[in-house]
Amino acid sequence: MDFRPLFRVAPGARVSLAEINPNAAAVGFDAEDKAAVKSSLERYREEMESFQYRLYADGSKSLLVVLQAMDAAGKDGVIRHVFSAMNPQGTRVQAFKQPTPAEAARDFLWRAHLHAPARGEVVIFNRSHYEDVLVVRVHELVPEEIWRARYEQINQFERLLSSNGTKILKFYLHIDADEQLARFKKRLDDPNRHWKISESDYTERKFWPDYIQAFEEAIEKTSTEESPWYIIPSNQKWFRNLAISQIITETMREMNLTLPMVKVDLEAVRQHYHAAKSQAEKIKQSSL
Amino acid sequence: MDFRPLFRVAPGARVSLAEINPNAAAVGFDAEDKAAVKSSLERYREEMESFQYRLYADGSKSLLVVLQAMDAAGKDGVIRHVFSAMNPQGTRVQAFKQPTPAEAARDFLWRAHLHAPARGEVVIFNRSHYEDVLVVRVHELVPEEIWRARYEQINQFERLLSSNGTKILKFYLHIDADEQLARFKKRLDDPNRHWKISESDYTERKFWPDYIQAFEEAIEKTSTEESPWYIIPSNQKWFRNLAISQIITETMREMNLTLPMVKVDLEAVRQHYHAAKSQAEKIKQSSL
Repeated sequence: MDFRPLFRVAPGARVSLAEINPNAAAVGFDAEDKAAVKSSLERYREEMESFQYRLYADGSKSLLVVLQAMDAAGKDGVIRHVFSAMNPQGTRVQAFKQPTPAEAARDFLWRAHLHAPARGEVVIFNRSHYEDVLVVRVHELVPEEIWRARYEQINQFERLLSSNGTKILKFYLHIDADEQLARFKKRLDDPNRHWKISESDYTERKFWPDYIQAFEEAIEKTSTEESPWYIIPSNQKWFRNLAISQIITETMREMNLTLPMVKVDLEAVRQHYHAAKSQAEKIKQSSL
Repeated sequence: MDFRPLFRVAPGARVSLAEINPNAAAVGFDAEDKAAVKSSLERYREEMESFQYRLYADGSKSLLVVLQAMDAAGKDGVIRHVFSAMNPQGTRVQAFKQPTPAEAARDFLWRAHLHAPARGEVVIFNRSHYEDVLVVRVHELVPEEIWRARYEQINQFERLLSSNGTKILKFYLHIDADEQLARFKKRLDDPNRHWKISESDYTERKFWPDYIQAFEEAIEKTSTEESPWYIIPSNQKWFRNLAISQIITETMREMNLTLPMVKVDLEAVRQHYHAAKSQAEKIKQSSL
């Protein structure tokens, strides 16, 4: 099943998250599919590894994956369960936290640009430049005219990356407020997760409708042909991982990644090999 | 079996690579052990993932792994087969290639320092600052007095990192010249690997004894208590991966990594949770 047409936000489309069911069942998957899903996931993991190898070898294109979501929606889980399929050589995770003084002293796209993928690389942004139209908007950290101008600035920035060979995929991990609360409860019940708890988990919930509104507008204004947003039903982790793996796999398949052309004269190299081989034999003979 | 005492180079010890057997059989492992090895490797992978999680969560220490070896000895293979066990979030591979102009304009440790692990990170150096006493020495890219001074500069640099909470492990992947030639032959025989072939594979072989000498002296001069070298028999890939995984696992175990202390008042958070829960119930009731 190709989830891309199902979850992709068409350019210019209106987004109403309240109307999108965050449960896997809404798209015909339920808990009984879990075992089948596991084997699909394993197949996608193998394909992703293979495509990433070719991307790395080819060295002319790159892949940028942006993960955004409410707290506890599973950004870290996606990185652990999906991107662990790829070779750590050539795969890089960049987390965007509170800007450092050096970052805050520049425009909001400066640090995103700094961490853009090099040719051959897969880079995952755990949060991203979109924070500057999300948390920044919700908490009114800059005036509206500033954050409102950013949608177009983001589109221009992403077009620049695309035109340079970077494929961009943006995922919004969609959970509902009840699911978030259930996950917070798990943190409370498991002493191994206590260190993750912060009071802001709860204080930020008051802004839930504001965040939803900010996400909706950001997704509407920045889902483009070259740089689409996907809204992934994420109440069920196994389904979320399946859908993202499938979308990445099929996107990379369409990148037509091939191994680079041979750069040397193979016949000359074969002669090098035979010379080296017979020299090695000679040394072995003489040491007998 | 703990490979650490077997393969670690004691500070001040003389190193003669010709006297070290690069075959697994030399330490009592042979091809029949492969199946058992696979299950051990799986166990180490799980432990490494778990220790890396704690290192990341703890955020006060870091791990730096340096990989050095002759061409085709398996640096890339170790990254793929050992470090893929770790979460890409918190694990970073840094490859050291020909210095860029910006790098060449600084001292040789500048770029190594730039890429040093942050607290909480595992960083793998694929080649490293050691190239500046290896290829640089063999090809006489700087005068002897310059590269000779570097051993002590390296020791001071690595002591600085250690004193700041970075655990350092350095691996020399030990293969012999025949094994290298056999691996070059595989590249020639497999069209999928042709793009990796370069003539320098063969021209560099002429310098084999010079490289061995450079490795021996570098290892002798820089294997210290805090920053040891391990010489890993690497003719058999499965054994190489096993030994390195075991050494990393046991080293991380001894770092006594614990999950961070709880930073919040759990009772207050539980009250937050119950307030949020009953509010959610109320909303549900009113919408029925």
